[in-house]
Amino acid sequence: MTGFFTEDNSAAAVNARIGEQADARLALVMSALVRHLHAFAKEVELTPAEWEAGIAFLTQTGQICSAERQEFILLSDTLGLSMLVDAINNRRPDGATENTVFGPFHVADAPVRAMGDTISLDGKGEPCRYQGRVLDMDGAPIAGASIDVWCDNADGFYDVQQPGIQPKWNNRGIFITGADGAYEFIGIKPVSYPIPDDGPVGRMLAALGRHPYRPAHMHYLVTAPGYQKLVTHTFVGGDPYLESDTVFGVKQSLVAPFEPDSTGRAAWHSPFDFVLVAEDSGKD
Amino acid sequence: MTGFFTEDNSAAAVNARIGEQADARLALVMSALVRHLHAFAKEVELTPAEWEAGIAFLTQTGQICSAERQEFILLSDTLGLSMLVDAINNRRPDGATENTVFGPFHVADAPVRAMGDTISLDGKGEPCRYQGRVLDMDGAPIAGASIDVWCDNADGFYDVQQPGIQPKWNNRGIFITGADGAYEFIGIKPVSYPIPDDGPVGRMLAALGRHPYRPAHMHYLVTAPGYQKLVTHTFVGGDPYLESDTVFGVKQSLVAPFEPDSTGRAAWHSPFDFVLVAEDSGKD
Repeated sequence: MTGFFTEDNSAAAVNARIGEQADARLALVMSALVRHLHAFAKEVELTPAEWEAGIAFLTQTGQICSAERQEFILLSDTLGLSMLVDAINNRRPDGATENTVFGPFHVADAPVRAMGDTISLDGKGEPCRYQGRVLDMDGAPIAGASIDVWCDNADGFYDVQQPGIQPKWNNRGIFITGADGAYEFIGIKPVSYPIPDDGPVGRMLAALGRHPYRPAHMHYLVTAPGYQKLVTHTFVGGDPYLESDTVFGVKQSLVAPFEPDSTGRAAWHSPFDFVLVAEDSGKD
Repeated sequence: MTGFFTEDNSAAAVNARIGEQADARLALVMSALVRHLHAFAKEVELTPAEWEAGIAFLTQTGQICSAERQEFILLSDTLGLSMLVDAINNRRPDGATENTVFGPFHVADAPVRAMGDTISLDGKGEPCRYQGRVLDMDGAPIAGASIDVWCDNADGFYDVQQPGIQPKWNNRGIFITGADGAYEFIGIKPVSYPIPDDGPVGRMLAALGRHPYRPAHMHYLVTAPGYQKLVTHTFVGGDPYLESDTVFGVKQSLVAPFEPDSTGRAAWHSPFDFVLVAEDSGKD
């Protein structure tokens, strides 16, 4: 007799069923998931009506997903799970630039642009000069680093959200550093925007008294041979949603200055240096 | 400054966002869910690849749902959550008949049949005489109790799974007790069957080295004015899946005798008494 399921032994009864042929890591992850899921239901004494509401919510979340929309990622983002997984897997030493969530709007193979070029192609928004260096942990410049940047336009939409309305590759580009590790480009000062909130996740946020906004940010994917990949944003200091990013992506070290540009090339100037960690230094 | 999200304070950072206008119970349930979800991710140090696999699994689970199929309920069932919610919400004193999962195959408004009638309309399977009494906690008979019964046919399918193949209301019926609280009807000895296993949940079970079978059982919904609703099964003693029900529905007290029938009216005889708890006795 293996012992039937009871309220007291519930998680152990479920996990005892995992067969020896199951992958060891899958067995570990799933048995932990069952333990925490059961602990949750016991702590709150989940009612049948609440269970039904949960089943309906998950079903609706799955059914609204399409090639253009991933509502379960929105759910993970808004419950802080995406940022937690990012944090667990990108622990870095002090002084290194911190990671944040990748987000759903990156597009591979953006145009490689000449240093100093503009990425804003729709003529909207307040021009901003982005400038800084890619450095190693000793402060030495990294040559040949790729800086892939993307942000929303002045209306709060990425180009891929408005095909036919925005020019292709609007507010996107890749810049390659030279021997001095320096980068410079002209973009716009990005604006805050709501995540798609007309589905189950939007209704959840409303029921919890939460807003769906992300503070204004510029996305960066910085890579260089021999260094750990950096996925991050810089955030516009002073944004009203800085302390309430609906996906919890803000870190103090990623809040960048946006100040009047003294060169006359743009209205704003945002300096920021990226500090990469060598690949062989480990991630913990 | 409310404090930005960090790996250490992750759940607290998420839950601090819940607004004062949120329903108190919703806030309690969701904040517990976030705490347990984050504790899970931290315990296993969930990787980005595992997170992506989880997002894909949940998406597929939602997308296979239809009017005829509820894959998230299958997921809840196979992870033991359905039985846990049932257990938490149906604690009963010793001597009362125990609850088990309702399952997805009940159909309301089955025909009310005369005591002693048969519910099996397709001529398949081994006839079995079901017989017993509906009693209160003092052993007194309950008159006017409604016994709503349903089970699969000899091929392992419920009538609603085979419209046009099985007669409507095959292996279903409602019986009303008289003054003696007794019931009797002819059905078949039910057979074990797999839950639908051609979707994400079936693939999960296979990956965990688990089979998709439920041991043979007869479903009962027993109600009487003034008594707590009883949702239960009786299980066929000796079934090979009795100790490994894929939805964890088996309780020792619900394993019923199936023995040769001495009356000559059927091949088998399964006696079982249902003991109901008065509504005003509380559920704990």
